[in-house]
Amino acid sequence: MKSDFLLSNDIGRELYSYAKRLPVIDYHNHLPFANISANTGFTDIYELWIKPDPYKHRVMRMCGVPEKLITGNGTNPEKFDAWCSIFPKLAGNQIYHWSQMELENVFGITEIPSDKNSAIIYKKCNEYLLSNSVTPMSLLNKYNVEYASPCASVADDISFFKNNTLFSPSLRGDDIVAPTMEFVKKLESISTTVIKDIDSFEKALEARLDEFQSAGCCFSDHALDNGFSFYPDDGKNGIRFKEALEGTLHGTEKEKLSSHILVMMGRKYAARGMVMQLHMGAQRYTSTRLRALAGASGGFAGIGNSVDAAALTSFLDALDMAEHGLPKTLLFTLNPADNELISVLSGSYSKDGVSGLITQGPAWWWCDHKQGIIDVLESTAAFGLIYNFVGMTTDSRSFLSFERHDYFRRILCDFVGGKAQKGMLPDNIDELKKLIYAMCYGNAYNIINKE
Amino acid sequence: MKSDFLLSNDIGRELYSYAKRLPVIDYHNHLPFANISANTGFTDIYELWIKPDPYKHRVMRMCGVPEKLITGNGTNPEKFDAWCSIFPKLAGNQIYHWSQMELENVFGITEIPSDKNSAIIYKKCNEYLLSNSVTPMSLLNKYNVEYASPCASVADDISFFKNNTLFSPSLRGDDIVAPTMEFVKKLESISTTVIKDIDSFEKALEARLDEFQSAGCCFSDHALDNGFSFYPDDGKNGIRFKEALEGTLHGTEKEKLSSHILVMMGRKYAARGMVMQLHMGAQRYTSTRLRALAGASGGFAGIGNSVDAAALTSFLDALDMAEHGLPKTLLFTLNPADNELISVLSGSYSKDGVSGLITQGPAWWWCDHKQGIIDVLESTAAFGLIYNFVGMTTDSRSFLSFERHDYFRRILCDFVGGKAQKGMLPDNIDELKKLIYAMCYGNAYNIINKE
Amino acid sequence: MKSDFLLSNDIGRELYSYAKRLPVIDYHNHLPFANISANTGFTDIYELWIKPDPYKHRVMRMCGVPEKLITGNGTNPEKFDAWCSIFPKLAGNQIYHWSQMELENVFGITEIPSDKNSAIIYKKCNEYLLSNSVTPMSLLNKYNVEYASPCASVADDISFFKNNTLFSPSLRGDDIVAPTMEFVKKLESISTTVIKDIDSFEKALEARLDEFQSAGCCFSDHALDNGFSFYPDDGKNGIRFKEALEGTLHGTEKEKLSSHILVMMGRKYAARGMVMQLHMGAQRYTSTRLRALAGASGGFAGIGNSVDAAALTSFLDALDMAEHGLPKTLLFTLNPADNELISVLSGSYSKDGVSGLITQGPAWWWCDHKQGIIDVLESTAAFGLIYNFVGMTTDSRSFLSFERHDYFRRILCDFVGGKAQKGMLPDNIDELKKLIYAMCYGNAYNIINKE
Repeated sequence: MKSDFLLSNDIGRELYSYAKRLPVIDYHNHLPFANISANTGFTDIYELWIKPDPYKHRVMRMCGVPEKLITGNGTNPEKFDAWCSIFPKLAGNQIYHWSQMELENVFGITEIPSDKNSAIIYKKCNEYLLSNSVTPMSLLNKYNVEYASPCASVADDISFFKNNTLFSPSLRGDDIVAPTMEFVKKLESISTTVIKDIDSFEKALEARLDEFQSAGCCFSDHALDNGFSFYPDDGKNGIRFKEALEGTLHGTEKEKLSSHILVMMGRKYAARGMVMQLHMGAQRYTSTRLRALAGASGGFAGIGNSVDAAALTSFLDALDMAEHGLPKTLLFTLNPADNELISVLSGSYSKDGVSGLITQGPAWWWCDHKQGIIDVLESTAAFGLIYNFVGMTTDSRSFLSFERHDYFRRILCDFVGGKAQKGMLPDNIDELKKLIYAMCYGNAYNIINKE
Repeated sequence: MKSDFLLSNDIGRELYSYAKRLPVIDYHNHLPFANISANTGFTDIYELWIKPDPYKHRVMRMCGVPEKLITGNGTNPEKFDAWCSIFPKLAGNQIYHWSQMELENVFGITEIPSDKNSAIIYKKCNEYLLSNSVTPMSLLNKYNVEYASPCASVADDISFFKNNTLFSPSLRGDDIVAPTMEFVKKLESISTTVIKDIDSFEKALEARLDEFQSAGCCFSDHALDNGFSFYPDDGKNGIRFKEALEGTLHGTEKEKLSSHILVMMGRKYAARGMVMQLHMGAQRYTSTRLRALAGASGGFAGIGNSVDAAALTSFLDALDMAEHGLPKTLLFTLNPADNELISVLSGSYSKDGVSGLITQGPAWWWCDHKQGIIDVLESTAAFGLIYNFVGMTTDSRSFLSFERHDYFRRILCDFVGGKAQKGMLPDNIDELKKLIYAMCYGNAYNIINKE
Repeated sequence: MKSDFLLSNDIGRELYSYAKRLPVIDYHNHLPFANISANTGFTDIYELWIKPDPYKHRVMRMCGVPEKLITGNGTNPEKFDAWCSIFPKLAGNQIYHWSQMELENVFGITEIPSDKNSAIIYKKCNEYLLSNSVTPMSLLNKYNVEYASPCASVADDISFFKNNTLFSPSLRGDDIVAPTMEFVKKLESISTTVIKDIDSFEKALEARLDEFQSAGCCFSDHALDNGFSFYPDDGKNGIRFKEALEGTLHGTEKEKLSSHILVMMGRKYAARGMVMQLHMGAQRYTSTRLRALAGASGGFAGIGNSVDAAALTSFLDALDMAEHGLPKTLLFTLNPADNELISVLSGSYSKDGVSGLITQGPAWWWCDHKQGIIDVLESTAAFGLIYNFVGMTTDSRSFLSFERHDYFRRILCDFVGGKAQKGMLPDNIDELKKLIYAMCYGNAYNIINKE
């Protein structure tokens, strides 16, 4: 890639030369912390570059690559060759850029993969891995990662994170709001709390939140799928909780319990100074066949319908009226048609002394491309304040995905520089650097360090 | 601001030098006509610049300014200082530009407010107010306002507007379609008509419409919130009207009565040659707490879900089939995802001899920023005709908000000039001036003057 | 028009000089094949240029032209004059460009129509028609049309298409999924199959599909209106089919039968290697009055609500799980807010060996303008692969509408050239030409020729 890739104006280039040196805070991802802990060196580029990246699997499917060579029982060289062979057809998609950045910056390969050079690239890269120690930790170091927050369930063992300044857990709360007997048993065991009703369930959760916070956890995360429905507490959620464990709670009744627990958790996040992330607008169920072959996170999710504005605002209002008010909240949507609807909520709730109480999160998942990033920056600028933007996070399970922070920073600097040149932002490089600092690093730093 | 602020091409600059001299018609706003009538001079910039502007309150909340210093019992200087202190963080948001334009064009202040210069600016501006007579009328004169139309309820005293060529009332009809006993009593009193059923309710409304029209009223306005539902008349709305006054009408039944009254009013607008404005896509209920502190219009509204296309088209069809057909109709949405859905309706209904029977209104409320304005111009161009665009209106309660006509005109001229340079519009300055004239002034003028 | 109309960069201009020479494949349109068969020469420009084009009727209505002069009993010269008179007001809308391209490229007229030159243009054009043989076939030849696929109902006589290499029928399936007695009688007759239940209905359809395929049919088409609901088979659709013929099936019950037949057809398309087009997001019912005056396709349709993501993915999943999997599927939406939601489905289903199993179709109907085309290219690039794009189709009933392939190609080449200059696409003219070839011609060619 050229050094000024994605940079089309002078101010943007100057800002990028500043931004690229800032450390990376990746406050929400799916890195496998067992692998980080083991820190085993990689020996096959396929295992590092392609296997753990559902984004790549997805575009391979679009090119008709047989599933055998994606997630099936093909050999690593066969799968690597299948990937390289379709590579030229990816031009125009962000995967085309990300993959080249990954290949060039880690392996020094600047050729564009294809069926012609697949075998050579495979050989070169594996030789590189043989003669250089490439491990999870070496990669994080290379990418200047200062803080990373892999997801964990409240019922997961998080001892890895104890006394670890680089890694903290991000609390993934989807099992909490849709409790099953299996989950509750696991929670009972890890929290050493007997759970016999919703009150003891809450007690167990409190115990775990203590653990998470002592492991450095600052961020929680909930998925609000299928448009999201919200039901205020009607006093029957104790009964519903028991039915949930018995497996007899369904449909709207289940949603009512989820609403109740979501409010319960949101209040705790506020009381504890934790950030609440809400991920909306995904259609996670698409192909039953691919779900069976590739797993629930296999790269085939779609975009869901718009979130229901009345439900979302009622939920936020329920927290706003509670003792500690709203926690700091980041709103993400996978449906770009909702960018404005969610971004405007920045101005709909408030807390004395808290800047950016509600802010739109960075472009998420399939939307994490140039247009998607710009769309979120535009909606944040127009309906909120870009000064409050908390920065990029990969939300990824791949150790190479940190390239996307560089991708984001280039687009951000080009965006800010372009706006400055058009008189839409102050033409003052020091002011603009302050803005870039806040958006790339400072705001996330302040959350983590409670500043 | 630089003289070519927002103007990036030569044709645009030439068009703006023409556009800026056109008078302002502001056909829908919330100016407090009691204040206009009193025309008291302003003595404190806070009272003029910040207090009446919920847009500013909104961004202060985003910065964590305590509510005490926004709408609470802080002193004027404290509130002024709080505003200036957060000002640099607003860069990127339209408020940053509007506020600078207001400060520069009324007070001659070109510095960017901050915590550093807050006290000095406050002093200078209040000295300016002391030595210059700045009144509602002097401001309207300064902004070259030829016509302004503040909202009034059908039950309001509108004697202020009688024999007033500068001001006419814009009929805000939300209380009409959701009648309560309190409203009906007020309407009875002002119309000197006994209201005992839906027929006498209609009679009272007719009497008031006569009054409004004799006061120059040309525009009505209805909010269609929460997606909007429409129900054709089933003959039971006489009964529903009585239940509404008794306070026993709720939910769908209430919506049915609203549908019926909306059609009733739409027919009257058509018969009387009045314009019907429909404002869609707002989520007015967000924070209960802020509603209590700051009032219903306190700057915390959100964006609502998409309007229901089937309901909206059924409603318009009910009018299209009536004796006088559709009134001239302006469609506004706060949800930009609906821009195309509403703009395309320009071609879905018609009336012999009426150009622009249905047209998308200008970018509204939180969408009234550069991107929002361009989005509406683009959707109007592609799905309707920009020649039929009726021009900007502030929809504001602030006397300084007329700056936004200048903001709009700059963006419009840049848009039109840019399109002309790319061959998308005729590269003929006389033709383009005709277009600019129609879009800034002529089309609204024709409505007001029945031409 | 200037030769570089819509072309703003050097790479784009070079690509266009290549693209303009590629033949036209128009795989889905509404050309009247009776007229093609007769191939009668045109003698009045009104009959060729204005009468068969509801897009023009639509903008005439926006200008208040009386319906008498649009679809009523005005004379041809009167209607022609009405059209020319409003022409200058169309600037900014794509009709302004398309109409000029049609006038210039067929008749050599470069003046912009207006009330001033209406009579002269009318005279010149009709003289041109008198001295030149302009027929449906001469026009298709002029536009370098290699393949065109007009819609036909499964119950239509398609003998015209037999042994015709230029034309094949595109199967319009809306009557199939909402069967009535009238339709079934027609189908019985043409298929010479007695239809007494849903099984014999299917048999008749199979017979007709054999006929359609032997007439070269490669494309089917279904409209999924009103958000689209999907219901999996519950075993009761045999009964529902009988009720449908009796005219007693309504509402949700009718939708359940439609779901069932849609799946049935989709499976057949997959088994037969036919493409399934799904057209979503239209609000076809708007003005009852215009529907009566101008017919169901009279140019007044609106944009409908978002498709339901859960319903659409369930439907596609039902096919994905069936014996032959999904047919190659093209997704179209009239609501641009859904572009991303439908484009992302490219990666949600797959079939070994099939590139572009699901792909977003080109910008459709009212969205077929510069911004609309770019929006679809952007969503295809970011959420799918532009390499899989199957190319432009007019979906039109006018013989002059093939100009829109040129319009599309200019916009496409400008888009691709611009991306290449910004480093978003490879700056390699040979690679880019391959991409342009695939997007303008190659992918559609491969479908038709089963390559």
